[in-house]
Amino acid sequence: LSVILKDPALIRNQQSQLCALLQIDEEVAKLLQLKAQLGGDEGKHQFVLKTAKETLTGKYGEDSKLIYDLKDQGGELLSLRYDLTVPFARYLAMNKITNIKRYHIAKVYRRDNPAMTRGRYREFYQCDFDIAGQYDAMIPDAECLKIVYEILSELDLGDFRIKVNDRRILDGMFAVCGVPDEKFRTICSTVDKLDKMPWEEVRREMVEEKGLSEQAADQIGEYVSMQGGMDLAERLLQDQKLSQSKLACAGLADIKQLFSYLQLFQVTDKVVFDLSLARGLDYYTGIIYEAVLTQAGVAAACGEAQNGAGGEESVSVGSVAGGGRYDGLVGMFDPKGRKVPCVGVSIGIERIFSIMEQKAEASAEKIRTTQVQVMVASAQKNLLEERLKLITELWSAGIKAEVMYKKNPKLLSQLQHCEEAGIPLVAILGEQELKDGVVKLRVVASREEVDVSRAELISEIKRRTAEV
Amino acid sequence: LSVILKDPALIRNQQSQLCALLQIDEEVAKLLQLKAQLGGDEGKHQFVLKTAKETLTGKYGEDSKLIYDLKDQGGELLSLRYDLTVPFARYLAMNKITNIKRYHIAKVYRRDNPAMTRGRYREFYQCDFDIAGQYDAMIPDAECLKIVYEILSELDLGDFRIKVNDRRILDGMFAVCGVPDEKFRTICSTVDKLDKMPWEEVRREMVEEKGLSEQAADQIGEYVSMQGGMDLAERLLQDQKLSQSKLACAGLADIKQLFSYLQLFQVTDKVVFDLSLARGLDYYTGIIYEAVLTQAGVAAACGEAQNGAGGEESVSVGSVAGGGRYDGLVGMFDPKGRKVPCVGVSIGIERIFSIMEQKAEASAEKIRTTQVQVMVASAQKNLLEERLKLITELWSAGIKAEVMYKKNPKLLSQLQHCEEAGIPLVAILGEQELKDGVVKLRVVASREEVDVSRAELISEIKRRTAEV
Repeated sequence: LSVILKDPALIRNQQSQLCALLQIDEEVAKLLQLKAQLGGDEGKHQFVLKTAKETLTGKYGEDSKLIYDLKDQGGELLSLRYDLTVPFARYLAMNKITNIKRYHIAKVYRRDNPAMTRGRYREFYQCDFDIAGQYDAMIPDAECLKIVYEILSELDLGDFRIKVNDRRILDGMFAVCGVPDEKFRTICSTVDKLDKMPWEEVRREMVEEKGLSEQAADQIGEYVSMQGGMDLAERLLQDQKLSQSKLACAGLADIKQLFSYLQLFQVTDKVVFDLSLARGLDYYTGIIYEAVLTQAGVAAACGEAQNGAGGEESVSVGSVAGGGRYDGLVGMFDPKGRKVPCVGVSIGIERIFSIMEQKAEASAEKIRTTQVQVMVASAQKNLLEERLKLITELWSAGIKAEVMYKKNPKLLSQLQHCEEAGIPLVAILGEQELKDGVVKLRVVASREEVDVSRAELISEIKRRTAEV
Repeated sequence: LSVILKDPALIRNQQSQLCALLQIDEEVAKLLQLKAQLGGDEGKHQFVLKTAKETLTGKYGEDSKLIYDLKDQGGELLSLRYDLTVPFARYLAMNKITNIKRYHIAKVYRRDNPAMTRGRYREFYQCDFDIAGQYDAMIPDAECLKIVYEILSELDLGDFRIKVNDRRILDGMFAVCGVPDEKFRTICSTVDKLDKMPWEEVRREMVEEKGLSEQAADQIGEYVSMQGGMDLAERLLQDQKLSQSKLACAGLADIKQLFSYLQLFQVTDKVVFDLSLARGLDYYTGIIYEAVLTQAGVAAACGEAQNGAGGEESVSVGSVAGGGRYDGLVGMFDPKGRKVPCVGVSIGIERIFSIMEQKAEASAEKIRTTQVQVMVASAQKNLLEERLKLITELWSAGIKAEVMYKKNPKLLSQLQHCEEAGIPLVAILGEQELKDGVVKLRVVASREEVDVSRAELISEIKRRTAEV
C-alpha cells in the first residue's frame, strides 16, 4: 500500500519516458532505428511510433477530442519554459504580488547538448527558492546563501565553495578598465567562461573575437584573479581605479554588508568573494553567486574537465547551485513598470542526483528502491486469505507492508524478493503459526527468525524498523 | 529557512501562472483586454504580453539560443499528454518492464471547458497509482481499491462510494440485450452518462441518436439499475439471459473474487457493484471503478447537479477517483505486441483540493500557509545582528524560524505578521533580555509571554510546538 518507488534513476528515466509531449531529436532517431530493426512493413504489429500525437491517438475513445493539440493554438509562437525565474517574475507582475517567499520544483527545457552521465538533460527539473519584496539590503540575499550552504552540507556531497560577486562590481570594473558600454554584456559572457577555460583563452576571445583592446583585457585579467572575503571588498573600496566607479562602490559596500550577515549565519568558511564570477544571464542586477563542489574524488567520478580559474584552488566539478538578485525582471512584466526586487537561488538537483548516484555506485552500498518495512509471506499453500487479513492489520497500524500478488507463492521467491528489494523484515504465516497464534518474524539481513504473538506483532515490527 | 508555502490555492494559481509554455485561449483574451486597457501604443511601457515565446525573449542573453522552441521540432504533430496512463504504458513497453508498482503525480492537459470552482482545469495535476505484471486474478485490483478507500477516508472528505463494474459484464450485457457488436463502444459511452443525466435521457440518446431498438434499450435499462455486492454477482451468474455470455460470466466471477478480497481488506462498506458504471475510455479490459463523494453538504457547496441514476441513493458530487484494468495497452506500444497486464487508479487531486478548500472556507478555520514555528523578533532598534545570531541557533537545531528582512522593524508589525501568517510563537529580543541572558517567548494565540533562558530556549520551543 505504501510502496513508494524513490529510486532517483527510475524517476529520472520516467521523467523523460513518461512525458509523451516532447518529441526530442534523439527519441525520433531511436524510434527510426527501432523501425529499421523491425524490418519495415511486415508482420502483425507493423507501426511506427513516430510522434507524440500518434502516441495518444486511438486510446481515449470519444474523449479524444479533449486532447490538447499544440498546433491548434492559433499559430502562436510557443516555447517551453527555460527556467523558473522568468515565469515567477511574470506571475508576480500579473498578480500584483509585492511580497512572497516560495520554492518551486518543476521541469524546464533547454535546447542544449545533453550529457546524461553528468546530469545534463534537455528536459530536467529545477528547484528554485526566491524572496521577493522591498527589504533592507542583503538580508534576504544572505538567507539565500545560508540555504545553499545548508542544502549542500546536509546532502553530504563533499567539500564545496560558494562564489559571490556583484553585477555592479563587474560593470564598474569593465568601465574603469576601458570596456565600451555596448560591450559590457558580451565581455561579461566571456568572463563567465573562466570556470571552463583558462585565462589565456578567455583573453584571446575578448581581444580577437570581441575586439577589446589588449590593455583593457589585461586590466580585467588582474581583477578577475582576485578572491577573498570581506577584507577584499574593503581593499577594493580603496582601489584607486575601481573606487572611481560609483556602481562598483555600491556593489562592494553590499558585499561587505553581506559578509557581515554571513558571519552571523556562520557560513563564511565556504563563501568566497570571487571577481571572476560573472554568470551569463542578463537579468541579474546585483549580487550573484554560484556553488561548486571542489572534491577531487567527485571530479574524477564525474569525468569533468579541470577548472581553469584559480590554479592553486581545489578542483571544481562545476556548478550545483546558482542565483542572484534580479530587481528589474518583475517590472518588465508590469504594464506600469512597477518593480519588485527579488533575489533567488536555483539548486541543480539533476546534477546533484547524478553525483549522489555515482557516489552510491562507487560505495557499492545498495540503494533501497522501496520503503516497504515488512513482507507478509506464507510458508504453505492456500494462505492468501490469511496473508491479506494480516496485511490489513499492518496497514491499519501504519506499517509499510507488501504481499505478493500470487495465491500460492513459494517461500523462497518471497524471501528472494525481500533480499533484492531491501525489505528488512518478513512476517511468515504457516499452519503451525496460525494454530499457535503467532507470526514468524524473519530479519532478512541476519536470517534470524523469532515467533512473535499476533498481539505483539505490530509493536515488535515498529520497534525493529525504528532501529534501522 | 524552512518557510514552505503549502496553500493549495497558491499552488493552483502558480501552476497555471508559472507555466509559460501553454498559451490557452482565456489567457490570450485576458492579455488582449489588458492591452486594450493600456490604451494601445502610448506611454513608456507599451508592450503586449502576447505569447509565451515573447515572454521568454530577451531575458537570458546569449543563452537564449537554448530556449526550446516547439515550432522548430521538424513540424511534427505534437500534443500535450492527456493522462498519465498511456505514457506509463509506453514507458513499460519501450523499456521492456514487465513488473512495476509506482505512483506518479504530474500535469496533464485537456481541451475542455474549465470550471475553476469545481476544480476542472485545462492544465491540471493527476495522481496515479498503477500495478503492472502478470499476477493472480483480482489481488492487485483489490489493492487499488483499498488504496482509494484509504486515501478518501484519511482526507476526511465526507461519505463516499466506490462503484465497481467490469467491461466484460457490460459487453456481455450489450450482447444479450441485442446491441450490435459495432455499437458496443458508443452505447457504452451513453451508459457512462448515467451519473450526469437521468435514465430517460440516456434511453432517448440510445434510441434516437444511436439507433438502438427500444427493446434493447429497455433491457439495458433493467440491468443498469442494479446495484449490490457479491450477492448481486452471484445472482447475475444465475441470470438466464446474462449467463449466456461467457464474457459476462468471466467478469462476474472476477467481481465475486474481488469482493472476497475486499472483505479481507475491510472495505466492502463503501464498495458497490454497480452495472451502470461504464467509464468512457477505450483502453479498459476488465474491472473498472470510480469513487464518488455522496455527502449532501459537499454537493451544495460545489453547486453540482444531482445524480440522475439511483434516485433513492445519496446525492453524488461527481467522481474523485477512477480507474480499472487495462491489459492491452502496453502491448499496443510493443513491437511484438507483448502484453503486460495493468491495473491502476487515478486520484482527482484537483477536485479533492477544490472540495477541501471549500470546506475550509465554510468552516471559517484559518489555513496556515507557512510551517514557520517561531518568529525571531526585536523589541528595540539595532538588534538585527542579535536576531540573526539567534535565528542561526534555531535553524541549527532544526526549528522552523523566520526573521523580518528589516534592520529595525516595529514590534507591532512583527507580531501582526505572526497573527496573519498563523506563526504560533515569537522569540522577542530586547536590550533587557540580552542583559539577562533570556528571550521573551510569546504565544501568539494567547498573548502570554514568558522569559526563557537562552540555554533552554530550543527545548522550550520544541516542547511547545510539539503540543500544537
